[in-house]
Amino acid sequence: MPNRITLHTIAEAANVSVATVSKALNDTGQLSAHTRRVVLNTAKELGYEKSKGAIALRHQSGLIGLVSADLEGRFSMPALIGAENTLGASNHAVLLTNSRGDPKLERAHIDQLAARGVDGLLILGGETDSRPPVKPNTALGIPIVYAYAPSNDPDDCSVTCDNTAAGAAAINHLIDRGCSRIAIISGPEHYLATKERIDGAMAALRKSGMRPAAPTRYGNWHESWGRTAARLLLDSGARFDGIYCLNDMLARGAIETLLARGLKVPQDVAVVGHDNWAVTATECQVPITSFDNNLQEIGRRAARLLLDSIRGNRHRGVMKIGCSLIVRESTLTKPR
Amino acid sequence: MPNRITLHTIAEAANVSVATVSKALNDTGQLSAHTRRVVLNTAKELGYEKSKGAIALRHQSGLIGLVSADLEGRFSMPALIGAENTLGASNHAVLLTNSRGDPKLERAHIDQLAARGVDGLLILGGETDSRPPVKPNTALGIPIVYAYAPSNDPDDCSVTCDNTAAGAAAINHLIDRGCSRIAIISGPEHYLATKERIDGAMAALRKSGMRPAAPTRYGNWHESWGRTAARLLLDSGARFDGIYCLNDMLARGAIETLLARGLKVPQDVAVVGHDNWAVTATECQVPITSFDNNLQEIGRRAARLLLDSIRGNRHRGVMKIGCSLIVRESTLTKPR
Repeated sequence: MPNRITLHTIAEAANVSVATVSKALNDTGQLSAHTRRVVLNTAKELGYEKSKGAIALRHQSGLIGLVSADLEGRFSMPALIGAENTLGASNHAVLLTNSRGDPKLERAHIDQLAARGVDGLLILGGETDSRPPVKPNTALGIPIVYAYAPSNDPDDCSVTCDNTAAGAAAINHLIDRGCSRIAIISGPEHYLATKERIDGAMAALRKSGMRPAAPTRYGNWHESWGRTAARLLLDSGARFDGIYCLNDMLARGAIETLLARGLKVPQDVAVVGHDNWAVTATECQVPITSFDNNLQEIGRRAARLLLDSIRGNRHRGVMKIGCSLIVRESTLTKPR
Repeated sequence: MPNRITLHTIAEAANVSVATVSKALNDTGQLSAHTRRVVLNTAKELGYEKSKGAIALRHQSGLIGLVSADLEGRFSMPALIGAENTLGASNHAVLLTNSRGDPKLERAHIDQLAARGVDGLLILGGETDSRPPVKPNTALGIPIVYAYAPSNDPDDCSVTCDNTAAGAAAINHLIDRGCSRIAIISGPEHYLATKERIDGAMAALRKSGMRPAAPTRYGNWHESWGRTAARLLLDSGARFDGIYCLNDMLARGAIETLLARGLKVPQDVAVVGHDNWAVTATECQVPITSFDNNLQEIGRRAARLLLDSIRGNRHRGVMKIGCSLIVRESTLTKPR
């Protein structure tokens, strides 16, 4: 059945200009949310169907709801900045809520955001472990993209960092610097980030015909564990000339122990961390080579996928953004 | 002239219930932004005047624009969380933008927020130095409260922390712990936070009949300067049993130097920091006694003042929130 409703028909019915109708239907130009809604509702009531494309005749508020699970903001703020850059450039605004990792609070926030007519939801996690998807009766069909913490439903769209590749790159970098006996100091075993970084590291060691210089030491993510783990490694009699620490705080603690025992970093032992967190990686006596999670890029990419989804091009699966190696003094010269 | 327009008149004209009119006029209950606007506009057109109170008949969107100047989020995120707590509880939502400390970008963000009909603006700074107010032709009469970085117009409403009181409390705490020769390691001299903390410290020393154990060492805010400044202090031959460091990174650096020189903290030298920043204050070998800026409380208070202002009760001047002393090992036992 041919589409007989024209922009003129809608303009007359909504008592606006044809240009305004065009702007509202194509989601371009400067229109108030109210006018846009009136035009889209009128078009819908008249049974108007766009001849091309798949733009749903949902009224658009230009608002994106961002639900952050991260209280401290260490991981979420850079992703938020990246998302806001992208959304702002496409004339969207960010409604921010903080769920403090509480699923009930997350549901309540999403309810409120839906009531405000957000066009899409960006769900930002505080770690890379996957999470249950937002329930359909909470999301009400609003497009969603998950950032940093991916959804465990493969049908959802998520953006996170590539921890496996970072683990491999850490080992390869230490080998490039001349290390031949590499030990690993890790955080808690149950994190997906831990598992992936270790998997990547082990694969890289195997590929170079190496084995770890000592069994991987698992503990927490704190500097004090880095200090202790390095002491345990030294006391075990294991010989090593490189340590891959799974975050910068562990690296900082390990370096403190190495220096206190009279060893030189990187001449005797080279050390790599992860997170590229300015204060920890750069403020200590030997600045730490580290991996940047490119959180701003994760935020930007997630925002772009969300905008695409709002325009009707839904994406599926987990997109992984590479971590960048930032070389500092802790690996700057070859050991021995 | 008596007010002859009743809630019934407005309800009839706007085609809603009397209860809805009441909710809209009193800014209570669950109403869509659209309904609230329709009721308020109808009331305005009819010339309705509330018999009591000073509620302006502006339509309310339930949106608050938050403009943050702080890229890293270290200071802004806790204040944001505090503000969101308060605003969420009063049925407002936070539209977040990041100005990256760029005045032009700040103006552009405020323009966009105004175009979205925000009821008020919360302007969040990254430091306690005062800043120029938002220009009237940018703000368009929207109520504004400044948090952390106060406006330098005394007619504006600002909430920040009480650095002078913190400086005095730091000295008094060291004296309480038995210190009688206190040195000060500071960040850059030109920050207002520096000036106020030093002013407070000097006043407290005078009050106890003391003078600083050495001239105040000014530098930057980094750990490396804390290490260097402590070395310079020791090498100068000055005798001291307490150091007031103006932030935690300086304190951490100073403690590293003291330990490396064979001194005990706090037995030989007690050390106080400022900011209570978890990683720096708690992760090091001697956890640092520090002052918490109560940023969440600053955010909550600023949000409450803003809501008050939106309801017509405008506030003026700079409100100062006290910093809380958090005692840790670096001052836990009396020196000698």
